[in-house]
Amino acid sequence: MIFRQLFEQESSTYTYLIGCEETREAVFIDTVNSEVDQYLQLLKELNLKLVYVLDTHTHADHITAAGALRTATGALTLLGEQAHSFCVSKALHNGDEIRVGQLVLKALFTPGHTDDSYSFIMENKGQIYAFTGDTLLIRSTGRTDFQNGSAADQYESLFNHLLKLPDHTWVYPAHDYKGWTVSTIAEEKAHNPRLQVKDVTAYVDLMNNLKLPDPKMMDIAVPANRACGKT
Amino acid sequence: MIFRQLFEQESSTYTYLIGCEETREAVFIDTVNSEVDQYLQLLKELNLKLVYVLDTHTHADHITAAGALRTATGALTLLGEQAHSFCVSKALHNGDEIRVGQLVLKALFTPGHTDDSYSFIMENKGQIYAFTGDTLLIRSTGRTDFQNGSAADQYESLFNHLLKLPDHTWVYPAHDYKGWTVSTIAEEKAHNPRLQVKDVTAYVDLMNNLKLPDPKMMDIAVPANRACGKT
Repeated sequence: MIFRQLFEQESSTYTYLIGCEETREAVFIDTVNSEVDQYLQLLKELNLKLVYVLDTHTHADHITAAGALRTATGALTLLGEQAHSFCVSKALHNGDEIRVGQLVLKALFTPGHTDDSYSFIMENKGQIYAFTGDTLLIRSTGRTDFQNGSAADQYESLFNHLLKLPDHTWVYPAHDYKGWTVSTIAEEKAHNPRLQVKDVTAYVDLMNNLKLPDPKMMDIAVPANRACGKT
Repeated sequence: MIFRQLFEQESSTYTYLIGCEETREAVFIDTVNSEVDQYLQLLKELNLKLVYVLDTHTHADHITAAGALRTATGALTLLGEQAHSFCVSKALHNGDEIRVGQLVLKALFTPGHTDDSYSFIMENKGQIYAFTGDTLLIRSTGRTDFQNGSAADQYESLFNHLLKLPDHTWVYPAHDYKGWTVSTIAEEKAHNPRLQVKDVTAYVDLMNNLKLPDPKMMDIAVPANRACGKT
């Protein structure tokens, strides 16, 4: 397995490149459109053929490179069926398996940050990787106050799905704003301040009182991402 | 082995936390003084006892957290003997072994970016990790035009030491300015534009014509780092 985490500073976005060492097929998760040239350089240098570009959800803080990468490489672009995006190659459903050579990523519907949020779960050599998008962040969770977000749905996604993954599962989120690159389910259970609530009511109350400003790029990014990155 | 890469956005610095799962002892490499609270939080949450704080060299672009971490945890601070720093706990020499529980980091003198530059080499379960400081960067190398830098010395450090490590060695640098987090020796040999020169003369010529501005923080950071982070 080939694995690279990339960081885009403007929106503090983590992008993941995962490739199969045998077949040289690869997938990108949560790309940023300003970085397309770098993605193409890395694919070429690692001798990888891009087959899929996944987005965990319709982002409000940056524009996806999915469309540009599809044009450049012929890869298929995937996004949750709930996004109702007319331009993706294929809509994702809960439980879908995305095969990249000998690797399999399982799509897990984890709504709450948005109503089209998915996580991708992969196992390789006994190690489980959870790409949690904006659902589970390191010591935080994604806001739930726009784009049909729902704190109650996010509670369900977190407590009844993601936190039920094995303790040693790596947590790779779509963002981190303090420079942390990875966590584990055990760590988040123990130390994520938003996960110490006693029930769904307390979580909803917590999330509904964050009083966050709208993301700077929201009015541009959401329609652009629905159009696969075309602005 | 516990391993975390952390990113400090202001100076694009990568800091590494390496811990032994058995003894819970840990070491930080290349810390940044603005991040001390986060380092202490992470040590506590991962149940680690800090025993060493290493700097690959006297940095010119950020201030080390070595002194603050030593005060807070009692860890020993290490820096190359060539730094002539009066405040480090112990000066590093080429070939020194730094033991952190069952892990061993070997100090490899790799001058060129500065005259006190070291890399740290570690093996764990068949995987070699090279923490290359500012000597070998991802698709680049550290500048050699100040702090007793020497392009000829750096050529020797690169071609006769670091690039002789096994191809699959992970390369973890002290910085990346484009968001790439890791590379391998094989990748750098093949794709690092500065390593495609035919001999030392060509490398010296290349490095002496980069015409880079001085780092913004140089006049503050160098004396502060010689004083273990005290400003």
